[in-house]
This record gives sequence, C-alpha cells and structure tokens, in this order.
Amino acid sequence: MLFHVRMDVAIPHGLDPKVRAELVATEKARAEEIQRSGKWPELWRVVGEYANISIFDVDSNDELHGLLSSLPLFPYMDVKVTPLAKHPSKVG
Amino acid sequence: MLFHVRMDVAIPHGLDPKVRAELVATEKARAEEIQRSGKWPELWRVVGEYANISIFDVDSNDELHGLLSSLPLFPYMDVKVTPLAKHPSKVG
Amino acid sequence: MLFHVRMDVAIPHGLDPKVRAELVATEKARAEEIQRSGKWPELWRVVGEYANISIFDVDSNDELHGLLSSLPLFPYMDVKVTPLAKHPSKVG
Amino acid sequence: MLFHVRMDVAIPHGLDPKVRAELVATEKARAEEIQRSGKWPELWRVVGEYANISIFDVDSNDELHGLLSSLPLFPYMDVKVTPLAKHPSKVG
Amino acid sequence: MLFHVRMDVAIPHGLDPKVRAELVATEKARAEEIQRSGKWPELWRVVGEYANISIFDVDSNDELHGLLSSLPLFPYMDVKVTPLAKHPSKVG
Amino acid sequence: MLFHVRMDVAIPHGLDPKVRAELVATEKARAEEIQRSGKWPELWRVVGEYANISIFDVDSNDELHGLLSSLPLFPYMDVKVTPLAKHPSKVG
Amino acid sequence: MLFHVRMDVAIPHGLDPKVRAELVATEKARAEEIQRSGKWPELWRVVGEYANISIFDVDSNDELHGLLSSLPLFPYMDVKVTPLAKHPSKVG
Amino acid sequence: MLFHVRMDVAIPHGLDPKVRAELVATEKARAEEIQRSGKWPELWRVVGEYANISIFDVDSNDELHGLLSSLPLFPYMDVKVTPLAKHPSKVG
Amino acid sequence: MLFHVRMDVAIPHGLDPKVRAELVATEKARAEEIQRSGKWPELWRVVGEYANISIFDVDSNDELHGLLSSLPLFPYMDVKVTPLAKHPSKVG
Amino acid sequence: MLFHVRMDVAIPHGLDPKVRAELVATEKARAEEIQRSGKWPELWRVVGEYANISIFDVDSNDELHGLLSSLPLFPYMDVKVTPLAKHPSKVG
Repeated sequence: MLFHVRMDVAIPHGLDPKVRAELVATEKARAEEIQRSGKWPELWRVVGEYANISIFDVDSNDELHGLLSSLPLFPYMDVKVTPLAKHPSKVG
Repeated sequence: MLFHVRMDVAIPHGLDPKVRAELVATEKARAEEIQRSGKWPELWRVVGEYANISIFDVDSNDELHGLLSSLPLFPYMDVKVTPLAKHPSKVG
Repeated sequence: MLFHVRMDVAIPHGLDPKVRAELVATEKARAEEIQRSGKWPELWRVVGEYANISIFDVDSNDELHGLLSSLPLFPYMDVKVTPLAKHPSKVG
Repeated sequence: MLFHVRMDVAIPHGLDPKVRAELVATEKARAEEIQRSGKWPELWRVVGEYANISIFDVDSNDELHGLLSSLPLFPYMDVKVTPLAKHPSKVG
Repeated sequence: MLFHVRMDVAIPHGLDPKVRAELVATEKARAEEIQRSGKWPELWRVVGEYANISIFDVDSNDELHGLLSSLPLFPYMDVKVTPLAKHPSKVG
Repeated sequence: MLFHVRMDVAIPHGLDPKVRAELVATEKARAEEIQRSGKWPELWRVVGEYANISIFDVDSNDELHGLLSSLPLFPYMDVKVTPLAKHPSKVG
Repeated sequence: MLFHVRMDVAIPHGLDPKVRAELVATEKARAEEIQRSGKWPELWRVVGEYANISIFDVDSNDELHGLLSSLPLFPYMDVKVTPLAKHPSKVG
Repeated sequence: MLFHVRMDVAIPHGLDPKVRAELVATEKARAEEIQRSGKWPELWRVVGEYANISIFDVDSNDELHGLLSSLPLFPYMDVKVTPLAKHPSKVG
Repeated sequence: MLFHVRMDVAIPHGLDPKVRAELVATEKARAEEIQRSGKWPELWRVVGEYANISIFDVDSNDELHGLLSSLPLFPYMDVKVTPLAKHPSKVG
Repeated sequence: MLFHVRMDVAIPHGLDPKVRAELVATEKARAEEIQRSGKWPELWRVVGEYANISIFDVDSNDELHGLLSSLPLFPYMDVKVTPLAKHPSKVG
C-alpha cells in the first residue's frame, strides 16, 4: 500500500554541532535501513529546500507511523502523509 | 531529470456529458502515450480526490511544459510542479 | 485500518431541483449501504456546514478510494483524507 | 454532545528531558483518566505527526474547555474544536 | 450554551431578482423569529461585508445545526461555528 | 460603537514562572477594570484555546487601541479587530 | 475616525456589457460624490489589479458600512476594513 | 525601474471559441508590442501552468498599471506585482 | 510615486530592555526624520496590533528600499510593499 | 535551463554579531562566484524585505540544488523554486 510523504526538516540553529552531526548521521543510517527493508522505495530531495518527498510501501497506517516516528529527525520534521491508490490511466 | 507534479482536475459540472466523456477518453489515451515514452514513470491517484501525483523524467523544463500542456484536461487542471534532485540518503 | 475523512459538499445552485433531489437520495442510499457493510463506522454532521466528518475502516487505500468515488455526490465534494493509527494513550 | 478535537503538540526542543518525560507521563495518565470517565470516547494518532484527532462527549462547552485545559500538554498544543451533530444519513 | 457564528453570504449574481428578494425577505423573517425565541441573542453586521457575526445560545450542537440549516440563505452561506466558554476574567 | 476583537495569547514557555504569574494577574485586574468601565461588554473563552473573543464598545478607534495596548499581555497577543455595525435584521 | 479599506472588484465576465457599463458609471459617480463629502479622503489604484486601497474618514462604523454598501459595485466586491489610529511617531 | 510581475490567466471555459481565439491573438500582439518598446524585458512561462513571470522596466507605477491594464487578457488575469531594487551582491 | 507599506513589528521578547528602548527611540527618530523629508507622507497605527500602514512618496524602488532598510527596526519587521497608481475615480 | 528562485532570509536575531558578519561576507563572496560562473544571471532585491528573486541557468535540477545548498545562508533561508520555460509570446 503506497503513501506519499513530504518531510520538511527544521533543526534548531542553536543545536550543539556535535549533537546535530550525530542526529544527521543516525537519521541517514535509519533511512537507509528502512529503504533496504523495501518499505521506503522512493526518496527524492526537493530542490532548494531541506525537505524530501518519499513513497512508502507498507501494510498498514500503524506500520507507516511506526517507521516515520522511528526516524531520529522526526521531532524536527513537519510531515504530511497522502494515501495513494492505483490510477485508472496507469500503464503497466 | 525528475519532477514531482500534482494535478488537481476540476471539469465544469455543466459540461456536455458527451464532450466530457470524449475529453476524459483522449486524456487517458494521451497519458498512456506519454507513459509509454518513458517520460512519465509514476502516476498515482490521490485517495478521495480527482487528483494525481506523478513523477516525470524529462530532459528540460520546456519538454515538461510541452508534455503537461498537451494533456486534453490541461485547461481544467490546477498543476503544481516541484523539481526533484538526488537525495544524499537514497540507497541504490 | 482507520481513515479520517472530511467531505465538504457544494452542489451548484443552478442544478435542476429534480436532478438534485435524485442525487441527494441516491447519495443517502449509497451512504447507508456502505455503513451497513461496516466500512464506514462513524459519520457526523459538522455543525453549521454542508459537510461531514467520517471514519472509514478499510483494508487498503484503493478500497477507500473506491468507496469514496462511488458516492453520487463525489463530483460535488471537496474530500480530505487523513490516515489514522493507534494512539499510545488510547484506553481499551 | 459530540465534539471533534484536533490537537497538534509542539514541545520546545530545548525543554529539560526530565521535565519533558514527566510532562508526557502526566499527560498520558490524565488522558487515560478522562477516557475512563467516558468523556473522551475516541482518540487516534494522525499518521506521521505528533498530533491526535479525538471525539469528546460532554454536556457543555465549558465542560469541554475544562477537560482540554486540564491536560498537562495544553500549553504546548494547538487545539481546534469542531462541534458535531447527528448526520441525517447516519445508520443505527 | 454559547456559540460564536460567522456567516458570509454569497448569493449568485445571476439569481432571478424576484427569487432573490423573496429569499432575503424569508431570511429576515426567520432570523427575527429565532431571535425572538431567545436562541440568537446577538447579531451584528461586519462592516463592509455581506456577513454577520452572531452569538447563539442553545442547549445542544444538534439544536444549533437545526437553527442554522433552517435559514433560507443557508445554501448560500459560508458558516464557521466556534464554541464559547465562560472566561475566567469575565466580570459579573 | 462596537468592535469584535479576537485575542490569541502566546506567552513564551521559557518565561520566569513568577514573571508569568505576575503578568497574568495584572492582565486579569486590567481586564476587569476595563469591563467595569463599560467599554468591554462581552468576553468569552474560545473552547480549547488560550484565546478570547470580545466585544468592545468605544467612542473611537484611538480609544480602542489605547485600551488594547494597555493590556499587560498585549506584547504576547495576536489581536484581530473587526468593526461591527447594526444588522438590518437585528430584533429589538 | 480613519479606516483603511481595500476593495477587490470581480464583475462576472458574462454580465451584459451595457449593464456593466452602467454599473461602472454609477459607481464612479457615487465614489466621486462620497469623496466630495470629505468622507473618502484617499483613493488609490493597486498597480496591476482591479482593486483600490482607500482611506475613509467617518464618525462611526455604521456610517462606514452605509457608505460602502451604497456603492453600486458593492455586490461585486471583496472588501476588507482595517480601523486606523494615530501613530505615536506621526510627525505633524 | 524594475518590477516582478506574475500573471495567472483563467479564461472562462464557456467563452465562445472564436472570441477566445481573438482575445489570445490580440494579447500576443499587444505583449509583443510592449516588449519591443523595451518596457517588458523578460517574459517566461511557469512550467505546467497558464501563467507567466515577467520583469517590467518602467518609469513609474502609473506607467506599469497602464501597460498591464492595456493587455486584452487583463480582465481574466490574477496579477501580483513586486517592486525590485538593486541587490548589494549583484555582480556587474 | 506612491507605495503602500504595511510593517508588522515583532521584537523578540527576550531582548535586553535597554537595547529595546534604544532601538525604539532610534526608530522613532529615524521615522520622524524621513517624514520631515516628505518621503513618508502618511503613517497610521493598525488598531490592536504592533503594526503600521504607511504611504511613501519616492522617486524609485531603490530609494524606497533604502529608506525602509535604514529603519532600526527593519530586522524585526515583516514588510509588505504595494505599488499604487492614480485611481480613475479619484476626485481632485 | 531557467529556474525562478525566491530566497527569504531569516538570520536568528541572537546570532553572535561576528558570526553573522562572517556569514554575510562569505554569502556575498559565494553569490558573486556563482554569478561569475554564468549560472546565476539575475539577482534582484525584493523592496522592503530581506529577500531576493533570482534567475538561475543550470543544466539540471541536481546542479541547481548543489548551487543553492552551497550558499552559506542556505540554513537560514526559505527557498521556493519555480521551473521556467520559453513563453510563446516572448519576442527575440
């Protein structure tokens, strides 16, 4: 089941640089882990913004929320989730 | 080069049903044609809305505008285009 | 799987009264049918507005879109879908 | 009498972790207490967001405000209240 | 129980003048009737706009929706309802 | 002359609790003082929000601004003022 | 007493050209009449838009609403009124 | 003096096709005429939208409004004007 | 050449009171200086808000930006500039 | 390939003045460097705002994101990117 997710990241400017670096590193590791699980098939950078647009492929809403809230940057993100369905004109 | 495109369709209620059916049919044909060209790799239905979220893969802005404005439903659509770049945490 | 759905209805004022009455009647029948199927457990009227807030319980995004787009009033509705998950503080 | 309530939580990042943990714990306890009183029959997590959508069943506006403002997280929440009425198409 | 209600009226320009005049007259009569019942204690014109801000005093959400949806202009109004409670600094 | 005023209060979380308590107390005293002067005939709490909706009865715009900006919480408030006029359907 | 008023005009495209011309002419005449009364000291065109920004000088909210609603284009205008007061740094 | 102008065009769907074609043709001619005068140095198409972003170079606000309101499509456009100044980091 | 300027001021609550007082004093002095130069003919307080609406009369966009950015409070202000032109119905 | 980019800058007020000065200086240097590369042909100041509107000329979305995210002020900017195409009425 596919979900469109937009994540806008806003890490407080005043955060200790070391804490920030650690946060970003663990975020990257966790993101890669979820992608390798097949649950996060698409991840793109929005040009010019500290934001991404992603496609998640999960079995339930709860699973999606579990994955998103497990991201280290979750507390610093504005997340919008849009459920997707099969389009009648989709080829293949 | 990837672009995220959201299309919200609003066909006037008063449109002659035959004109409408023709419009929707030619839209479907044109959409399938562009997808088969490889320029429109992803097309999803937004659940609950007469709208889609798509990913286009084109060589230039002009090519993208040409494809979008060639859609029969173009005059009846609110279209938002967001350029995408490679995400540093993208796996594979 | 639960989804929160808000539907704002805007039937064109100029619609033939008989067509309108037929539309509203078939909408009511279809809404009742879906509710009896167990897929639409909650349906409330937003006070002061021709709008409702509903909870749908479905097995997939596609099923939800199928149900919503099957409503006779679908072309006249602005629909917003919000996926819901279990809340950690939910009792029982 | 039913009210739809959306609560978006934004706890300041800089809050002392111990204070935060205490706050979240007392919030959970208070939320469970109100739910057991029957005044808060529905509580769902909005997928991807530190937010919930709830249904309250109270006897008056004042009672609802009393309950909401008694939540420990109240100062850190953006709350929107929408009064609900019985829908004419509601089955059962 | 008090509710703050804002009503923005938008009667289609093309409506038959006689129908419009009849609509406005019956609206005025119904509004006066509800006011005399004590359920609509305050009604003010928003300066410069075809809109009013009102205070309703009712026993339930359902009663409020019944009153509002009984107004002849209801189909031509954008209505926003805000539940009110007693303010701790209210004198008298 | 009547004005509709909505005040949304946002006191910084980090404010010294004693300063905050003093601020809220002087606000309450000042609000009561203005109400007793007859200039602030209505004051309601917006359910679920640290906000009020009020009706002021003053002789001029300058008088209203003087009253509002004299409130101790003024620097922490988002204030929206809407001038009101007599409604043609107002009874009595 | 000064009020800032922004008027955005949207005359339906389909209006009979003669009716439109008559409307615009009577609007101009009425606007000039009110200006000569001293109640409408400032009237500017917003560059690029069928909109104006004006300053009205009236004795009451009711007077202002009377003047605005007397404009022939009033039914076709979106009007926003902002009450003004003397600025503490105003020279002269 | 430079101005950034965004024009979003919305020609009513029901307009007579011949009238529409004539309108679009005269718009094109007028736009080319103004460009040749040097007053309209930049004109770009917003990808995916019936909209343009332009730079005008004029001697006054009045001149700009005169040019914009002389466009045949002016009644069908939503226009936003942003005055531009020299940027301190502009090279050359 | 006239410009409508709205300035919404938001000085951080935590600013050192002495720094704040100095800032406000120099702002007042600078505002008076510009007004005496004739470039800032109108300055009004928006009732209930730490905001002003002004009319500037300048020879160019660059001059206007120079004046606005010279204001001591400029870093703490949200400024919106709207170019004005002569209105065809302006009397005198 | 042309992109319209609006950058709104918001440097935290509390930033160490020396750090701020260094940041602004390196921003200016980097901006000039990119302009000399031909990738940033247009850069204008938005009158009254700490914001610019720019035109970038790049070969791909990824190149544009690389340039924008290389700006020292990038973490303090709200950036909106709009892809541009050739306008059919563009002269020359």
